[in-house]
Amino acid sequence: MAANIAKGVLVVAGAGNGSGTGAATARLFAKNGYAVALIARGADSLTKISDEINAEGGQATPFPLKSYSHDDIASTWTAIQQRFPKPEYEIRAAVWNAGNAVFKPFLSITQEELESTVDTGIKSAFNFARHSILTFKENEVDSVTGKRGALIFTGATAAIRGNVLTSAFSAAKHGARALSQSLAKEFGKDNIHVAHSIIDGGILTDRSREYRKEPGWAEDANRRLDPESIAKSYLYLVNQDNSSWTWELDLRPAHEKW
Amino acid sequence: MAANIAKGVLVVAGAGNGSGTGAATARLFAKNGYAVALIARGADSLTKISDEINAEGGQATPFPLKSYSHDDIASTWTAIQQRFPKPEYEIRAAVWNAGNAVFKPFLSITQEELESTVDTGIKSAFNFARHSILTFKENEVDSVTGKRGALIFTGATAAIRGNVLTSAFSAAKHGARALSQSLAKEFGKDNIHVAHSIIDGGILTDRSREYRKEPGWAEDANRRLDPESIAKSYLYLVNQDNSSWTWELDLRPAHEKW
Amino acid sequence: MAANIAKGVLVVAGAGNGSGTGAATARLFAKNGYAVALIARGADSLTKISDEINAEGGQATPFPLKSYSHDDIASTWTAIQQRFPKPEYEIRAAVWNAGNAVFKPFLSITQEELESTVDTGIKSAFNFARHSILTFKENEVDSVTGKRGALIFTGATAAIRGNVLTSAFSAAKHGARALSQSLAKEFGKDNIHVAHSIIDGGILTDRSREYRKEPGWAEDANRRLDPESIAKSYLYLVNQDNSSWTWELDLRPAHEKW
Amino acid sequence: MAANIAKGVLVVAGAGNGSGTGAATARLFAKNGYAVALIARGADSLTKISDEINAEGGQATPFPLKSYSHDDIASTWTAIQQRFPKPEYEIRAAVWNAGNAVFKPFLSITQEELESTVDTGIKSAFNFARHSILTFKENEVDSVTGKRGALIFTGATAAIRGNVLTSAFSAAKHGARALSQSLAKEFGKDNIHVAHSIIDGGILTDRSREYRKEPGWAEDANRRLDPESIAKSYLYLVNQDNSSWTWELDLRPAHEKW
Repeated sequence: MAANIAKGVLVVAGAGNGSGTGAATARLFAKNGYAVALIARGADSLTKISDEINAEGGQATPFPLKSYSHDDIASTWTAIQQRFPKPEYEIRAAVWNAGNAVFKPFLSITQEELESTVDTGIKSAFNFARHSILTFKENEVDSVTGKRGALIFTGATAAIRGNVLTSAFSAAKHGARALSQSLAKEFGKDNIHVAHSIIDGGILTDRSREYRKEPGWAEDANRRLDPESIAKSYLYLVNQDNSSWTWELDLRPAHEKW
Repeated sequence: MAANIAKGVLVVAGAGNGSGTGAATARLFAKNGYAVALIARGADSLTKISDEINAEGGQATPFPLKSYSHDDIASTWTAIQQRFPKPEYEIRAAVWNAGNAVFKPFLSITQEELESTVDTGIKSAFNFARHSILTFKENEVDSVTGKRGALIFTGATAAIRGNVLTSAFSAAKHGARALSQSLAKEFGKDNIHVAHSIIDGGILTDRSREYRKEPGWAEDANRRLDPESIAKSYLYLVNQDNSSWTWELDLRPAHEKW
Repeated sequence: MAANIAKGVLVVAGAGNGSGTGAATARLFAKNGYAVALIARGADSLTKISDEINAEGGQATPFPLKSYSHDDIASTWTAIQQRFPKPEYEIRAAVWNAGNAVFKPFLSITQEELESTVDTGIKSAFNFARHSILTFKENEVDSVTGKRGALIFTGATAAIRGNVLTSAFSAAKHGARALSQSLAKEFGKDNIHVAHSIIDGGILTDRSREYRKEPGWAEDANRRLDPESIAKSYLYLVNQDNSSWTWELDLRPAHEKW
Repeated sequence: MAANIAKGVLVVAGAGNGSGTGAATARLFAKNGYAVALIARGADSLTKISDEINAEGGQATPFPLKSYSHDDIASTWTAIQQRFPKPEYEIRAAVWNAGNAVFKPFLSITQEELESTVDTGIKSAFNFARHSILTFKENEVDSVTGKRGALIFTGATAAIRGNVLTSAFSAAKHGARALSQSLAKEFGKDNIHVAHSIIDGGILTDRSREYRKEPGWAEDANRRLDPESIAKSYLYLVNQDNSSWTWELDLRPAHEKW
């Protein structure tokens, strides 16, 4: 994709249990020539995804962290940069996919849930973005895509609409969306592309397969998002040339009510 | 306004230095028969506003706090409820007006600024809302307005648009707006009215009088918001009857470019 | 309200059958000292509302028109200006409340329905706005409200969201909303205030009383909008001073799901 | 792309002078195996684009029409269906790209300009959509994309924001956007994909090359949209599988201020 000689690196935060958006994005980018740095809490699943990608001829390294605190994010980025140094490698894409959805009545949300939702959803996203942008600023502008790097935030319905069970969650997702818009405006002129996706529906993962009760849900592509299809949209975004960048797109299954 | 016998109480958080939206709201509600509980960091200015309102025949009590932490907000509400006990008083309105605007390039925002912006802007708002709603739930539905209480969040342009210098600030304001929308949806059915204002322009305060350079700005109502006019919109919202509640309205000077 | 000596005149288009928003606005403004010019298709109901207002000490004149065509709107405005000439009168407020809601599957909407929905919803609104603004431009700026005139568009949920049965209707309502925003921006600097309401729920009218099947709906203020409450919001908007104008507010019943 | 044996056909309305979005979309889809039906007012340029595509091994047919009236659109679709009959061909994609931008002060917009802007922008879009959807409904669901067909509307900044010079234009673009959202919701369940793009910046065309005064504008991809890049986004949308459809995406140059 890039005219650049260095091997492009994708950093994904929130690679989850291996069956979701983060892992699918890592796999797809690996197939498209990127080395991938996988960040998540929980070393086991990370190693598994990483091994799978490497077994298929890709290049992946797991970077498990304890928490998405300021310091853990910082030391993780240092480790990634040491593992993928210039000029052999160049970090050109980053995906923020971390944070958990909380669906609870307002009065039953604990202070701890509030804090973890907002801290991970906004502050950690902010710090991840900070490292991404500082890293991209050191890159040359790619001759094909006209960008130094691309940073994508995975959003949700809750990023554009507060609802009955999403007081804390929608606050966090709205916050991250606003952050992404500010960054898109501030760093577009530096040829850094910042984008935000609105995932408006259930994603097919190992976990959702289990807890979803509706018969046939997992099998019916019309009713749930395929992580690989989300990943394709991220690859499309990363490949957009600088004449026509997308800040935001929504993604939902064909039969979703919205 | 209310058919209720108890004296209505307004709680205002963020009564600032006495010349802004919080103080103007307190004054206007005091003139309209409300007792007012004034919350802010900084005891001096609070006492001054409170004294002024009392001198004009109103009823105001200052509740200075050290910070908008979970615990400080909780103890402040306890103190307010002790000062304004039922059945003599009834807390029927609350305005969240706290938090500072931060306009800085993304890469120059410190971790401390990020934390204070997000913590006060979202978590403190969340906790203030929690106490407001728990309090309102104990009220009867007012026979005139059809509500148990009204909670208003003061928003800003940054609540609906991220921009070049507002990465942290817009994240916080978007978050509070999403919170307000979630609460409006969740508690409307309990006859609790939650609203959000978008203040889209400069407000005339002692501070803005000083730092604004444009000649004639303070004198020209077409170019800046009068805190008293914002206060009027809040009184209008609080008085809306339950057939027609507003969640959100914007407010800007006549000549504002937007 | 106004320091002006001339009697203020409100022009309302879409005064309907007398039980809706247009008529309620006329009545409320009449009680607040305005002369009212009532525009609608259908002379009978117009005369009835007009007579009622006059019987209660107000001042109202019906201006029935055949259609909301360019020419009919123009000749109606000429007639209104002749009936309410300066300096005795001054047209200071105008409310665009005309047009019918169409809720039909896309493929069953006829070309005639499409045309009437779009023509009345957008072109007629445009022409009504044109006469309003040309008229307001001849007024002095009012010393209390800081405005030459106020123009309000009655919007709907369909103005902010297209939905399964609203392809034509939402196109028209979105169009009128965009028009109102453009005008607010273009004429704010001339001290002409343009506003837009989002009526997000069923309005209690003679007609809705009949076709609504849910028992208790009409009696329960929590479930439907009272036209008089909408009218109050319009009076509030018209009275806003030039430091703090609202372009848009939403209005919905307390128990509305949204 | 499709598992289908029939050759896919793209219908593009608004193929303009050959250097814009419509023509670029036709060229890109032709290169990707689609036959293309080109609709525009003005036979000359249409024939030229068509000849070019055919010369490069593609398959294109021009369908000039006099106007975007209800009847002309209907007869054009009939002609297209005769030229590209089943089972050899199957119309699987349609792009609505017609209509002119009008940037003028409100009071200087003529009735004729209002009518042509709204009529083409909304009514013609509605009728073009009608034929597209009726045609798609006759298709089988494609085994790869999970869709019967895709309909894309080319939008603009004016589709999401009214502004000082866009009263009529933004009314039309908002209307078409609302239409596209309604259709996406109504026909998603029939596996018909409806999407809307927000082109937020100047597009590089023969015309814009001429009237743009800024030196270097045409040469600097950071400052204007390349029609081919827009076309790529349309091809991406058409190829999205049914688990993850985008209704809306924005596109703007990297250095655009927004």
